[in-house]
Amino acid sequence: MPDLIEDLRAALGETAVITDPDLLLGHQRDEADLCPAGVPAVVVRPRSTADVESAVRLAARHRVPVVPQGARTGLAGAANAVDGALVLSTTAMAEIVEVDRVNRIAVVQPGVVNATLAAEVARHGLRYPPDPGSWESSTIGGNVATNAGGMCCVKYGVTAEYVLGLEVVLASGEVLRTGRRTAKGVAGYDLTRLFVGSEGTLGMITEITVSLRPAAEESLTLVAVFDTTAAAGATVAEIAAQGLSPSLLELLDQTHLRAIEAYRPMGLRDAKALLLATADTGPRAAADLDRLAKVCVAAGASEVYAASDAVEAADLLRARRLAHPAMEHLAATSYPDGHGGLIIDDVAVPRDRLATMLDGVDRIATEHGVPIGVVGHAGDGNLHPNIVVDRADPASVERGRRAFDAIMELGLSLGGTCTGEHGVGLLKRDWLAREIGPVGVRVHQAIKAALDPTGLFNPGKVL
Amino acid sequence: MPDLIEDLRAALGETAVITDPDLLLGHQRDEADLCPAGVPAVVVRPRSTADVESAVRLAARHRVPVVPQGARTGLAGAANAVDGALVLSTTAMAEIVEVDRVNRIAVVQPGVVNATLAAEVARHGLRYPPDPGSWESSTIGGNVATNAGGMCCVKYGVTAEYVLGLEVVLASGEVLRTGRRTAKGVAGYDLTRLFVGSEGTLGMITEITVSLRPAAEESLTLVAVFDTTAAAGATVAEIAAQGLSPSLLELLDQTHLRAIEAYRPMGLRDAKALLLATADTGPRAAADLDRLAKVCVAAGASEVYAASDAVEAADLLRARRLAHPAMEHLAATSYPDGHGGLIIDDVAVPRDRLATMLDGVDRIATEHGVPIGVVGHAGDGNLHPNIVVDRADPASVERGRRAFDAIMELGLSLGGTCTGEHGVGLLKRDWLAREIGPVGVRVHQAIKAALDPTGLFNPGKVL
Repeated sequence: MPDLIEDLRAALGETAVITDPDLLLGHQRDEADLCPAGVPAVVVRPRSTADVESAVRLAARHRVPVVPQGARTGLAGAANAVDGALVLSTTAMAEIVEVDRVNRIAVVQPGVVNATLAAEVARHGLRYPPDPGSWESSTIGGNVATNAGGMCCVKYGVTAEYVLGLEVVLASGEVLRTGRRTAKGVAGYDLTRLFVGSEGTLGMITEITVSLRPAAEESLTLVAVFDTTAAAGATVAEIAAQGLSPSLLELLDQTHLRAIEAYRPMGLRDAKALLLATADTGPRAAADLDRLAKVCVAAGASEVYAASDAVEAADLLRARRLAHPAMEHLAATSYPDGHGGLIIDDVAVPRDRLATMLDGVDRIATEHGVPIGVVGHAGDGNLHPNIVVDRADPASVERGRRAFDAIMELGLSLGGTCTGEHGVGLLKRDWLAREIGPVGVRVHQAIKAALDPTGLFNPGKVL
Repeated sequence: MPDLIEDLRAALGETAVITDPDLLLGHQRDEADLCPAGVPAVVVRPRSTADVESAVRLAARHRVPVVPQGARTGLAGAANAVDGALVLSTTAMAEIVEVDRVNRIAVVQPGVVNATLAAEVARHGLRYPPDPGSWESSTIGGNVATNAGGMCCVKYGVTAEYVLGLEVVLASGEVLRTGRRTAKGVAGYDLTRLFVGSEGTLGMITEITVSLRPAAEESLTLVAVFDTTAAAGATVAEIAAQGLSPSLLELLDQTHLRAIEAYRPMGLRDAKALLLATADTGPRAAADLDRLAKVCVAAGASEVYAASDAVEAADLLRARRLAHPAMEHLAATSYPDGHGGLIIDDVAVPRDRLATMLDGVDRIATEHGVPIGVVGHAGDGNLHPNIVVDRADPASVERGRRAFDAIMELGLSLGGTCTGEHGVGLLKRDWLAREIGPVGVRVHQAIKAALDPTGLFNPGKVL
């Protein structure tokens, strides 16, 4: 499509328009497995809302689909290109426009990296809580588009709860401003929330106003060892039933603990399952941690160990953060020539069904003959069962897919959702349809058609 | 429309279908001033979702608009009938379906009164925080439809933040289920949030799943006296800047204090302005209250007084809760024959603009020659300027309207919103359009048309 590319160059300048074939191939996909990806015709790196407006209007005129991309750390294929698409990358829109201490808000362009924002607001004595696993590289735009979760959610909620307002370029090329800068407001439909988590299917987010919290207080962390993963899961329900509010409540199973140990030895090899729990209540943290420890012991923990200081606590949390790369490493080295791979799943169930879910995943692993490790944000009922497959062996990949479906099926049957935090993208369109039912699908389609009647944005994703 | 009424009686039973003229007149309006209201053709009191489905399908077939009503305590006219409408009242759908302690959720029908739910979950050691001024009579369905606020919002957020999922009867008569029972979930567009605050224009809410919190901890309350209302407002900004998080931060001006004193004497007469602040941090409350007190003193409070016990604190909060009826009483008795009335406004500004807003309201009162008292949820930047008018004197009402518009104008010019918590209804349609602009209006209209193409639900509201 030489015409489109010439038009884009004329409107945005040469350097914003990328057509180098290697770079196009480098913008095909996010980090999701099992998802198809096409080759874009062009990658555009706008610097401003006006650039995005021009690019969207040109794409619409040339009838070329637009695929928004941030850091491509997503795990559901929502950022995957389709053949011939215009990829709209936010990487050159990375300015922190404003940090307002009194009103506790920040205004950012979508390409600002989560960790960069977190560090900047910390300089003002404030905190941006959402902390997805990818926080050191993922962007606020991507976090908002996927409504990213993380470890803080059990007490501080997901990304959506921090988005006060958005600027969005619509399929018409018009610029919509949603939301507000005030703490409260009920003027009209909640369009902000409609775009949060819509995975780039309704428009291109060009500016984000987030709310901030006061800086975190001092925190203390414990680790509790359990004889079974299900026992750790049951403990989470008991912690909730007791009315406790840890600021972090994470679960690691033996598969993950061994993977971490092989990747970076930390002395965790022997445990069957661990819970990590943090109390971040400053002067009360010791008392709150003690209550958490007592619940763990009463619920059958064989050992409870409180980190003696912030350094030790940080080590424990680092082990948790290593779970994903360590499992990737384990999977890769489980089969010859590095052909091993990981199918990363994401399911959330009501907290009182965690133990049942964990037992079920064990059974599914056995039934389908694939290793499955489970790690996750147990305090939210949000688990990541990670399935190890041999990519060189179609039968192994097929067994993995079946196990994946069995996990989804079980999660929904327990009153859960097919995605706690990774999103739908390409990976879970069928499961979304099943979860929300035909009326829900029709309402989704009606809203998509109302905002993007020609299907310009991110075709094939979510729906 | 005898046919519709016969069909309704056949489908829902005689007692659910009300056509008594006096009762029809009694269902014309909510508590908003300045808003037109028609006479409904029929009031229907469904007992179940199936009843709502039948009523909506019949209304659609007979081309009769449907106006949802809860307790009619709204303050923007969103529940006002239009001539010939079918009013769908939730009063007979008042069952608390479930309280789930471990997962901290409750499932309720829309007609459950806020205070009833709060009391029931308290029996389970849990808390439903949203506490609109009308909490003793307003319904959860109405609270959700208007995204009601209250005094707890400064720390605990508005109704929307507690709505996990909804059941909604759409204009097609189909039943949509949105959201989830899990703590986290990102499956598809956030339809739950789209219906919250949509003021009955997109469908009829028939069931609500709310999230709950652990029971409140012990709290302590102080009152700080200021020489000007603006000084009290500036103190709120300073409290935020210091990173403090009171669980309540309310402002009362001298007009309200005198109104309360006349209505039920509490010794508050002489203060020019008060801030009420609560720290609900249990064992830390005394220390946190002390920090709040210090900020008040440093910011110029002439006196700071900490309630010595829970009884005294409850008295102070009762005075705050009396502000609205006391001002109504003051207004009514300000003019002969009880013709005095109150135009209740609702505006929210960024916290650092509170002092400017408060000074501006003073100026507007002088310029327009109408008494205006201000009370509000200052911690959120949310104020209720209440304008006293003589309903028997069109010139007085007109001055009140102009003052109302001037307040809206000022609020928007300070980066605020035209409604912090009361909603748009009929009262603020023009101001909504001005706040969100033509692109925002078009997106609203597109969504309304996508979900309710014939305009069946609550015509003329919001848009």
